[in-house]
Parts: sequence; C-alpha cells; structure tokens
Amino acid sequence: NLPLVFITGPCVIESEELVLTTARRLAEIASKENLSLIFKCSFDKANRTSVDSFRGPGLERGLEILAKVKQETGLEVTTDIHEPCQAAPAAEVCRILQIPAFLARQTDLLEAASKAALQYDGVVNIKKPQFVAPEDCIHAVKKCEAFGLDRLLLTERGTTFGYGRLVNDMRCIPIMKQMGPPVIFDATHSVQTPGGKSTGGDREMIPFLARAAVACGCDGIFAETHPDPSQALSDGPNMLPLDHFASFAIQMQRFRDLFNEISGTSDIPSA
Amino acid sequence: NLPLVFITGPCVIESEELVLTTARRLAEIASKENLSLIFKCSFDKANRTSVDSFRGPGLERGLEILAKVKQETGLEVTTDIHEPCQAAPAAEVCRILQIPAFLARQTDLLEAASKAALQYDGVVNIKKPQFVAPEDCIHAVKKCEAFGLDRLLLTERGTTFGYGRLVNDMRCIPIMKQMGPPVIFDATHSVQTPGGKSTGGDREMIPFLARAAVACGCDGIFAETHPDPSQALSDGPNMLPLDHFASFAIQMQRFRDLFNEISGTSDIPSA
Amino acid sequence: NLPLVFITGPCVIESEELVLTTARRLAEIASKENLSLIFKCSFDKANRTSVDSFRGPGLERGLEILAKVKQETGLEVTTDIHEPCQAAPAAEVCRILQIPAFLARQTDLLEAASKAALQYDGVVNIKKPQFVAPEDCIHAVKKCEAFGLDRLLLTERGTTFGYGRLVNDMRCIPIMKQMGPPVIFDATHSVQTPGGKSTGGDREMIPFLARAAVACGCDGIFAETHPDPSQALSDGPNMLPLDHFASFAIQMQRFRDLFNEISGTSDIPSA
Amino acid sequence: NLPLVFITGPCVIESEELVLTTARRLAEIASKENLSLIFKCSFDKANRTSVDSFRGPGLERGLEILAKVKQETGLEVTTDIHEPCQAAPAAEVCRILQIPAFLARQTDLLEAASKAALQYDGVVNIKKPQFVAPEDCIHAVKKCEAFGLDRLLLTERGTTFGYGRLVNDMRCIPIMKQMGPPVIFDATHSVQTPGGKSTGGDREMIPFLARAAVACGCDGIFAETHPDPSQALSDGPNMLPLDHFASFAIQMQRFRDLFNEISGTSDIPSA
Repeated sequence: NLPLVFITGPCVIESEELVLTTARRLAEIASKENLSLIFKCSFDKANRTSVDSFRGPGLERGLEILAKVKQETGLEVTTDIHEPCQAAPAAEVCRILQIPAFLARQTDLLEAASKAALQYDGVVNIKKPQFVAPEDCIHAVKKCEAFGLDRLLLTERGTTFGYGRLVNDMRCIPIMKQMGPPVIFDATHSVQTPGGKSTGGDREMIPFLARAAVACGCDGIFAETHPDPSQALSDGPNMLPLDHFASFAIQMQRFRDLFNEISGTSDIPSA
Repeated sequence: NLPLVFITGPCVIESEELVLTTARRLAEIASKENLSLIFKCSFDKANRTSVDSFRGPGLERGLEILAKVKQETGLEVTTDIHEPCQAAPAAEVCRILQIPAFLARQTDLLEAASKAALQYDGVVNIKKPQFVAPEDCIHAVKKCEAFGLDRLLLTERGTTFGYGRLVNDMRCIPIMKQMGPPVIFDATHSVQTPGGKSTGGDREMIPFLARAAVACGCDGIFAETHPDPSQALSDGPNMLPLDHFASFAIQMQRFRDLFNEISGTSDIPSA
Repeated sequence: NLPLVFITGPCVIESEELVLTTARRLAEIASKENLSLIFKCSFDKANRTSVDSFRGPGLERGLEILAKVKQETGLEVTTDIHEPCQAAPAAEVCRILQIPAFLARQTDLLEAASKAALQYDGVVNIKKPQFVAPEDCIHAVKKCEAFGLDRLLLTERGTTFGYGRLVNDMRCIPIMKQMGPPVIFDATHSVQTPGGKSTGGDREMIPFLARAAVACGCDGIFAETHPDPSQALSDGPNMLPLDHFASFAIQMQRFRDLFNEISGTSDIPSA
Repeated sequence: NLPLVFITGPCVIESEELVLTTARRLAEIASKENLSLIFKCSFDKANRTSVDSFRGPGLERGLEILAKVKQETGLEVTTDIHEPCQAAPAAEVCRILQIPAFLARQTDLLEAASKAALQYDGVVNIKKPQFVAPEDCIHAVKKCEAFGLDRLLLTERGTTFGYGRLVNDMRCIPIMKQMGPPVIFDATHSVQTPGGKSTGGDREMIPFLARAAVACGCDGIFAETHPDPSQALSDGPNMLPLDHFASFAIQMQRFRDLFNEISGTSDIPSA
C-alpha cells in the first residue's frame, strides 16, 4: 500500500540553470503535495536521430550538476548510462541507474550497473525494450540477480507496433510485477512517435495512459517535464509542461489511493 | 458525469434455462448495486473456428428467449447481427444492435441496422475491427449518420498484434470519444488469444484492462459472464464467473466515480 | 511444375465498356504470352470506406457483364461474394467464387459458396484475413471440406501491421501450401495503405512483392489492372496500369520457371 | 549487375578448430562455385538471453583467430562490435565491421566504426534495428557519412511483429536500396523466434525468405552456417547446416542472375 513514486525532470541537461530551476520547483511540489519524487536528467542522449541533435554535457559535467541538484534540493537523482565504464561514477551520485531500453540485453552494461549499485547501495532501473515481450524481462532481472543485485525496478515504455508508433500493452504491468521488482510506467517515451526527421510525440495522451497504468497497479510514473517543452532540446513534444506537473501528480495519487483500496478485492482466477 | 453502463451476459444462448438464470441473477445485482446494466447474449455465433463449434438457437428462437429475459427481468437486451435481414426482427426485441468487428465495414449491414434502430428507437453498437485504427472508426459512424441514425455506441475490443494475440491501445478511448458516441470497452474479447484449435483467453487480465479503460474515460464495460465458464460452449476462457460479477462491477464503478471527479482537472494541451 | 495463374481485371465493374475493353486486351495478352489467366471484377464493393464511394452495378447486372466477358473472350471469370444468397447465381457464371478476407470466418458464407461451387463444378478462393495467422487458415479449409468441397484456393493479401499498413509475411506461402490448396498472392491488396479519407496504395511495390511470392512458391498472382488507374473508381493507387501487365506477367513467369527448376533442390530440414 | 555477396560462418567463435574447419570448407565452396564470400564469426555475443549462455573468446583472442582465417583461406572476414573501443582493433583485421541491430542508433559506436573503417579502408555494415522503419535507416547512413565514411552496407534482419516473432517486410529492400549502400538480407536472424528460455528459430524458412529477398533486389545474403547446428553454442536452430551451404548458394545465385537480367524491365511508376 505504498504511495506512487514519480521519476521526473527534463529529458537532457540543457544547462545547469535549467536543471536547478526545474529541480527546485519539483522539490517544492513534492514537499507541498507529499510526493515521493526522484529527479531524472540525462547527461548524454547517446542515440539521437541525427549527429546534429543536442546530446548534453557529458558524464563528468553532468554528474556535477546532478550532485548539485541533490545537495540543493535534497531530492534523490537518477540518470541513464550507456557504457559499462559510466556505471560506477554515476552510482556515486545517483540513487538509481537507468538502463536504456535499446541496451537492456547488453550483459556487460547490466553487470557494471549491478556491481556499481551494490557498491553504492543503489538501484538499477531496467527499461523493457520495445522489442521484448513482458514475460521475457525476467532474463534481465535474472542477469542482475546473478551479479548479486536485487534492488531493481522494471519500466514499461511501449512496444513496437508497426512502423513509427508504440503501443502500451497494459497487461505488461501485472505480468512484470510477478517478477518481483516494482514496475514503473514511462508515460513520456510511451507517447513517442519514432521516425521521420525527428521523433515526435503525443503529450496530450500522457494523463490517459498514466492513469491506465496506475489502475493496473504500477508502482511509479516516469514523466519528463520542462518549464517550456516547446523550447526543449530533446523530447519536447512528449514532456509535461512543468506548470501541469502538480495537478498531474495529484490526479495520479488519487488513482493510486483507489487502487490500493480495492487491491485484491476482485481478482479473477485464470482459466 | 454518467455512471458506467455494463453490457453483460453469457456469450451464446446455450439454453433458455441458462439465459434466464443468468439474467435473473444479473438483474438482482443491478438492482442491489444500482448498476445500469444491459443483458447481452448471441443467438448465433456465425464465425466460430470450426463447423463443429456450437452456434446457438438461431434468430427466431433466440429472439423469443431474449424477449422473455426482457419481460421477466425488466433488463434491456442486446445481441449481435450478421446479415442485413436480421436487423429489423432483432431491433423489435433488442434496444441495442451490435455490429461484429469483422463486419463493421459492411455498408449494407450498417444500413440495415441503422434503419431498424431508427424504426424501433434503438441504438447501434459498432465494434472497432481488429484491423482498423481508432481514427478510422469515424467512417462507420458517418455511414450510420448518413442513414439517419445518431444513437450510436463504439466498442474497443483489441487490435491485431502479431499472430494469435490482440493488444488494447488505450489511446483508442479518448480518440473514439471525440467522434461523439459513448465508447464501450469490451474486456472479454480483448483478452482472447485467437488461433490454434480454438480461441483461448486470459480471464485474469479482465479487471486490469477494464480498470485501465475506465481510467481513460470509457462510458461502459462489455464483459461476458457465465455461471460456470469452464462448461461454457463459447468464449469460456475469457468470460467472468457470474459469482465475481458484482465485485467486478463495484470496483469499476468506483474507478468511474473517481474519473468523473477528476475529469478535466489536468488535461494536457497537445504539442 | 505448373505455370503461374494470373487473376486480374479492374477492381470493380465501372461500366460494361470498361470491363469488355480490358478483358479483350487481357485475352490477347494471355494468348500471345501463353498465360493461364482468369478475369476478375467485382459487382459490388460492399465494404468501401464511405457511403459515397462507388459500389458497382450489383449482382444481377454484374453477372450479366461477366457472362459477356466469358462469352466474348473465352476467359474464365471470378468475382467476390458477400452474402450467402449471392453464391449460387455467381457460381453459375464464375468458375471461382472469392471469399473476402473480412468475411472468411463467416461459416454460412463458406457453406453457401462451397455448395454452389460443388453444384457448378467451381472453385472457392478463400482470402486469408488480415487478422489471422497463416497456420489458422486451416480452419476455413476444413469448413469447406466439411461441406464437401475440396477445389479451393488460398490467397495471401497481407496482415495487419500497426495502423494503416499491411505486411506480407512471406512464410505464409510455404505454410499455406502445406494445407493442400494452391496459394495465390494478391499483390494489389497487399500494397494497400488502409485508413484516412480513402484507402491508398503503393503500386510501385507490386513487382517486388509479387516476385518475392513467386520465389516462395506461390501458384498464382492476383493483380488488378485498369487502362487508366488514375481514373479508377476503386483501388486506383494499387492497380497495375494495363499497359504494364504483359511485361509484369512475363517477368513473373520467368521467376516461376526458375522456381520450378530449382524446386526441392535445397530444402533445409527444420531444427 | 554484380553477383551476390555471401556473408557466412558460425554464429560465434566456439573454438579455433571449429572456425578454421568451417572457413576452409567455405573457401573451397567459394572457389569451386565462384562465390563472392566473406567469413563472419562473433568474438563475443554481448546480448545473450542469460548470463550462463556462451559468449565467445573475447576481442583479442577472437581477432587472432579471424586473422588466421584470413591468412589461411584468403577470405575477407567480418565481425560485430559492441563498444566504441573495439572498432579500431577489429578494423585492423576485418574488412567489414558489423553494427548490431540493437545498437544501430548509438552515435558513438557508429562514429568509432566509421573512423576505424576510414583508417583501414574498411566497410561498416549497419543492421536495421527491429524497431525501426526502413525509411528511418537513412539516419544511421547520414551519421556515418557525417563522420566521413561512405563505404556502407545496410542489412535487413526482420521487424518486431507482436511478441516472440519477427517479420520481413520485403519492401525494405527497395526502400533501403534507394539510400545508396548495397543491401544485405540476413536470413539467419530473420527466422529467429525471440523469447522464452532461449531464442529459437525456423531454419527451414531460410531458403524461402532468402529467395524472396534476392527477387526484391538485395545485393547479398547473410546466413550463418555450422558443421552441426544441433551442437552449436548459439543460434543453432537458425543456422544452415554446412553441408547445405553450397546448394543454397547456387540457388541464390541463379535467382540473382535472373534478377539482374530482368532488372528494370517492368518497373511500375508510383501512383
């Protein structure tokens, strides 16, 4: 009967100022609305559509900024890593190491992340690849467990559905929850429309899908936010405007409370 | 801010006794829990996997039994039709005529159903085909409107997802709601696993998907039920056991109440 | 080691003149290039996107025109039927009765078509629905066989792939061939892009996909043709221009000849 | 009007002996049948289903063995790389550096591979990810070109199709060919059935899909082979038995010859 966790922040570290401004505002909201909130921002977007896309400040400078967020706001922070050598430095600063969906089958990355999380008392958040059935996430879980780590999160972020579109099979959530780790629903990347000159998105669908996921029992919501998404350097079309974050989170909490209340009251045995 | 509608009953008219027993029990539940409930049962399963599958008693005898349900229980009734000539007789008894998903592009069937519904003050419920994008349901709506009918329902029942499986794109619900008619979520057929010797199903997923759909704003839930699904002559693996129906419906109502409360409080403008 | 069969003609009977002009030209090509060719044209497009779309002259007038084609050109003819009552009259004129993909699970239509084909020494051509796995076509085959008919064709016309697009899983062809009936590849409908205001198509992909299907062992090619597809009243974007038909067919024949030559020379046993 | 290229060899370097035995046999076949053949073997399977799966001898030892293949047989060699630091050492030995499908959006890997290929006069082979539309492969091409490399190959290896299955959209081949680089069809990974305890495969479908791809104009075939696939340490169910390789390749060459002959004779203009 835990409250929802919110993992949120701008997609990429555009500047120290943007990051700190956003984090301070999120910390205020978390405090006022009594939210469990973790600040997320990427130091490097390593798989952008084009070489001309903005990638971020890189590992070292990025971690400095995230450390400042932690110090100034008291929020725990998380970021995504792309190569094994990034795991230990990131784990020194970040409570949660996020494994990108495209990379969630790379054994060496899971190993490095697991070992770094063990060393720094951290958590590894594995994103379900777009090309993997929910049942098959168990392999990534077992890999991390084989490296000694059992503080894991699993994140649903949509499955490939034809070309240029993802679909959320909401059955993922109860299926993945049976594997043990809490399950996070990534509303931001689920509404991406990949392909074309740059990846687009359907931001207006975020509350619908996030409520659906909460009603299915997810333990947290991942939703990127930005003070002005129309000016964002990455994922603008699928981030929440920061002004909408508080009302979004309150709504999600109310669905979570109801889910907690009814939980188990009408399970249906399988056929 | 309307309450949810429930469309429910056994998949097929197995016998007068089964139908009346189930309908009486559903009428009691509806009365006790104050549910808006419509009784559904098919007189003919016209597209079963095999010629040896049970199909039902046929149009004439089926409508006699449905008329008896209406008379004895006071419940409104609905059934699906497969040929234009069945529309008028069915509309005489049934408040709602259901257009099967496979047939929802057949202009003559939509015309006959619309005209019959006009004549008998009824409603046409169009199921979104498994092979149609939600945006493209507008064509079926416009066809019915061209025949003079605007009392419509649209039903989501899953989209083809690879072989042997359906997926519910929950964005369907807000997209289809923008077309005007109320949107029903068919939990029973969404959890079918079509293919193989006979169509299977994942009944235990019904409450998850139905809650998700309510959280996205659907106006009704279609969920078939049977006193003993393990003995059912059609769709057994994906019907609710009748004993679970009341707690299922109560849970859905609670999510609906919350949806009604929060509705509009945190819409996100599109990008 | 049979030659390929070609099933071709305009999508819909736009007028007697168009049909006869096209049929005469196709008969000349068939004679000159020694093609096994069956003339196809629909008397009714029963599932158009909109009520305003052109549907055709209807059953009676349509069959008169097809009978004239047969008489004047000597070509066998085929058409699609949509209701059981159309089977017998159509079978009197047409050597092959085509079952539309959306309707291929409707038992009554398969029964009526099978019985009519039995009576008139005809053939039933079942199109694989867009929502059915190739393995599951066996059920439609068994239904027809249960009604006494074993002169069948199976047609691949694409599978639902996300929204607004079909994909041809070329493994369909060897899988469906194991069921007994010859397998036809429908190049015209495979390149449809369903959805939007009207169904579009990628005509330039027809030779690629048709060659691929021949290389997989299909026994015939279905490809609609029209003297001026840009003026066609249905399926214009995915019909072959009549001027290209002869070179298209010759190319397909050459791939068929090679397939016949190598057939069986390097089968790989399954794992 | 070039001949087909074959990229082949065992999935993973199981031992020096296995690799050299297989390479010698392939070199004999290439010489006898006049095939353009490149030897492929992985030094590390970095994304196996389980931590207990065999991964290979690693970069250093693997490249030693590949260098021996090159020296002893005269065949060019290729392997896949997983981290930027592997690009330069691999390019010293291998004519072609293969970018795994899951990693084909990782800009740093494309950069390292492009620069190493530039330095050693090599080629980069980009596999189309299972989650990317063919049109969107242009982004990976443009990234490599931005790093100065235009000696590229593009490889089709199937697209996610529901869960546990891939499908080859054969339109990929003409679409990707318009981007400039030659297009390879990976028959081995296209017949994988990912998921479950370990990835399975439908080896018997290899000749069908490979012929289809050649008929669509692909420039090469990637097909792993093993003296005894039932004993292979990776991808056994979808490798060709080495004894079947020669007849397979001859068959493909014949389809290529026919493709070259008819090429351009019946292109259809788009609508």
